[in-house]
Amino acid sequence: MSRSLISISDLTDAEIEKILDLSKVFAEVNSREIPKVPALKGKTVATLFFENSTRTRLSFELAASRLSADVITFSVAGSSVAKGESLRDTAETIESLGADLIVMRHPSSGSVKLVSEWLRVPMVNAGDGAFQHPTQGLLDAVTLIEHFKSENNLNGVRIGIIGDVIHSRVARSNIQLMSRLGAEVVLVGPPAFLPSDISAWPVKVSYSLDEVLPELDVLYLLRIQSERFSDAVLPSLADFSSSYLLSRDRLKRARKDAVVMHPGPVIRGVEIAHEIVDSERSLIRRQVENGVPVRMAVLYWLLAANEGKLDPAW
Amino acid sequence: MSRSLISISDLTDAEIEKILDLSKVFAEVNSREIPKVPALKGKTVATLFFENSTRTRLSFELAASRLSADVITFSVAGSSVAKGESLRDTAETIESLGADLIVMRHPSSGSVKLVSEWLRVPMVNAGDGAFQHPTQGLLDAVTLIEHFKSENNLNGVRIGIIGDVIHSRVARSNIQLMSRLGAEVVLVGPPAFLPSDISAWPVKVSYSLDEVLPELDVLYLLRIQSERFSDAVLPSLADFSSSYLLSRDRLKRARKDAVVMHPGPVIRGVEIAHEIVDSERSLIRRQVENGVPVRMAVLYWLLAANEGKLDPAW
Amino acid sequence: MSRSLISISDLTDAEIEKILDLSKVFAEVNSREIPKVPALKGKTVATLFFENSTRTRLSFELAASRLSADVITFSVAGSSVAKGESLRDTAETIESLGADLIVMRHPSSGSVKLVSEWLRVPMVNAGDGAFQHPTQGLLDAVTLIEHFKSENNLNGVRIGIIGDVIHSRVARSNIQLMSRLGAEVVLVGPPAFLPSDISAWPVKVSYSLDEVLPELDVLYLLRIQSERFSDAVLPSLADFSSSYLLSRDRLKRARKDAVVMHPGPVIRGVEIAHEIVDSERSLIRRQVENGVPVRMAVLYWLLAANEGKLDPAW
Repeated sequence: MSRSLISISDLTDAEIEKILDLSKVFAEVNSREIPKVPALKGKTVATLFFENSTRTRLSFELAASRLSADVITFSVAGSSVAKGESLRDTAETIESLGADLIVMRHPSSGSVKLVSEWLRVPMVNAGDGAFQHPTQGLLDAVTLIEHFKSENNLNGVRIGIIGDVIHSRVARSNIQLMSRLGAEVVLVGPPAFLPSDISAWPVKVSYSLDEVLPELDVLYLLRIQSERFSDAVLPSLADFSSSYLLSRDRLKRARKDAVVMHPGPVIRGVEIAHEIVDSERSLIRRQVENGVPVRMAVLYWLLAANEGKLDPAW
Repeated sequence: MSRSLISISDLTDAEIEKILDLSKVFAEVNSREIPKVPALKGKTVATLFFENSTRTRLSFELAASRLSADVITFSVAGSSVAKGESLRDTAETIESLGADLIVMRHPSSGSVKLVSEWLRVPMVNAGDGAFQHPTQGLLDAVTLIEHFKSENNLNGVRIGIIGDVIHSRVARSNIQLMSRLGAEVVLVGPPAFLPSDISAWPVKVSYSLDEVLPELDVLYLLRIQSERFSDAVLPSLADFSSSYLLSRDRLKRARKDAVVMHPGPVIRGVEIAHEIVDSERSLIRRQVENGVPVRMAVLYWLLAANEGKLDPAW
Repeated sequence: MSRSLISISDLTDAEIEKILDLSKVFAEVNSREIPKVPALKGKTVATLFFENSTRTRLSFELAASRLSADVITFSVAGSSVAKGESLRDTAETIESLGADLIVMRHPSSGSVKLVSEWLRVPMVNAGDGAFQHPTQGLLDAVTLIEHFKSENNLNGVRIGIIGDVIHSRVARSNIQLMSRLGAEVVLVGPPAFLPSDISAWPVKVSYSLDEVLPELDVLYLLRIQSERFSDAVLPSLADFSSSYLLSRDRLKRARKDAVVMHPGPVIRGVEIAHEIVDSERSLIRRQVENGVPVRMAVLYWLLAANEGKLDPAW
């Protein structure tokens, strides 16, 4: 068992800083005419996704490829998983084939941690149930640090995380990371979408978006994870939208410099009004763009950084 | 928004000539022991197919790879499209991930044009509904120019485009391109499969294959696009076949040097007799072979040609 | 039509020895910091799988990639096969696109042989119905030769092939190869799972695992291919398991140095007890690990070895 990235809480403050710094290095690489470095030449990165997510998978695969690693995609549909193979045997097979690192997504919280204990190679959690999605947290932090032109911190930034918090792994990773970087986090949503006991969380809570709106620097809308709850939890989507949808009117009552974020995929008109997605206030496309250098940083950090290979010639 | 290839009508005569010339250059590259050039090193080509077509997708992906570009395949099944993401957000996400060019296929006519107006990167239309499939037209032209050993023209060649013209994007691209290259085009099929008003099209029309057969140099059979019409349109496939199937007997009544083409996939016995597909009269395999250099030419033309990068050292 | 690897019986003894030797060369390559050689640079290897098998497909694709070949994956789901294209036209299309070698899996015995007769490029049978899976046989032989530290032979080794022999292509390839390498092969299973006439096979047969257990050096458990027989064949899985499952108790009655093999995917508790899979007696992970160098050897042997390209500089 190697060092893996399962949760933001696995990272020391120094490691977070290291990844944020590496991410800047690789953002520069990405801006080149030939956006490639031989940093992981000869390494094989495998993706193992038990939930559909083309955007996250492609972001990791592009990151691996720009580091000159080889990529193998284990597609669960049509694999021996369908023949009854266990999670452990599937993961061990990928390791035995020669993968040097496995990026895994799975609908069960804790599953990536469990698998990482069976394997010798490092793993990256690309989302496990409602638990964690650490690279999403990191790319969101990079996007905000870039926006606020700050030095690897978010001191004093007030971030509202709005909507379906309880079912969101993105929320869990972001709450931990943003608060450690100095931000004040407010969770906003109806009671059914908020954790019942937040005493251990470094956050405030509000049931009213309209009330907290004037104080927020960042409006982070979450996707409603309707695949993770029964219909009874949220009787009416229209009710939700009337109180929590980020409409054009509502955005007018926010701070003039407040920015809008969303982890994607965006379902326009449910969590966020159509025209806001593409507006100047939106950092949504920048979040996607930052995904590749952040994942390059994480892959490099896990596979090569301790070998001291950040070649100045790159 | 960049220059894209959506329709044959986007191309000037000089641009068509340029692509035909580049295609010859890349055909030579393909015949080498190591059929690769570093022409698009560092570029990322994405394929985004909303209709199944492994052959066309692989042809584009091989073309990109032989130009040393990286390839990302956005597979719609199992993507966030299933979660309700809009076409616009899907395409913008692929662009934000870092794609330098997007090759798209979609069942709706006009959809690729629409998406290209939202994006900054060039696009190639790999087939949109019944509208256009320009690289198929180009590879068919290359195949005929090669067959007739002509100089980038098809002057005086009589081409019959036979069968389900009305639902065929291949027919639309070929009619435009072949007639601009100097060919005479005759559309042949039952009334239900022919456009009702062809006054704007540079073609003749015939309902009888047997009648026009002795005058044709090229017999271009189309696939019956049964997924694009209701059963009522064509009461009987047997009736169609008796009049329009290219049988062995019918081929005997054609010109001795007439050649047979089909865009594939071929369903033997419906549009064309089994043994003709593999005969010396058939250019069908040559069409597939020419697909790769033609797509190399198009990708290179859109991504690099105006940077003057056709290195003589290749 | 080129030389292909369809069945173990295609290979002369000298060719088997050549592949075993090449496999050792490529195992050394795989152990390097950068496990790649330019042996097949510029070649394109296509995989064409009509049955699900991510592990075998990835093993071939990794092998091709470590030889610096390009890989194209023809995925049958979502291809023109669904539009009614024939097996022949699908295979010829892949060849026309530019594949230099096709790795094919198909549920019908004999199908890969048939296709190889239509094509000009070499093929590798990655499993056809209940007929053959030659690279599995070769990687199993490599695993045993490595275990017994022998010189490309298995002289005197007693191998029990246990379970669903009749439906197993792995069994057929292994019986041929192991006995040619000098091993004594015993087939063990209930009558419904054994061939009715084995007079032409170089094997012994037993209906009782417990009876032959003390004499076996290798316990090779097969997967029950329930997709290949009707329920009537095997009335009760529980009955099967009580007599043929390799349980912990049963393993205690085997020779102290007997080893356990399985072609995967393992369904723990049906053919083999959970804890044995990961025990020191198990060669199962080693089988998977050896798959990549063995397939590198086969691809290299078919595409390059007769050109005398085994460069000592690698």
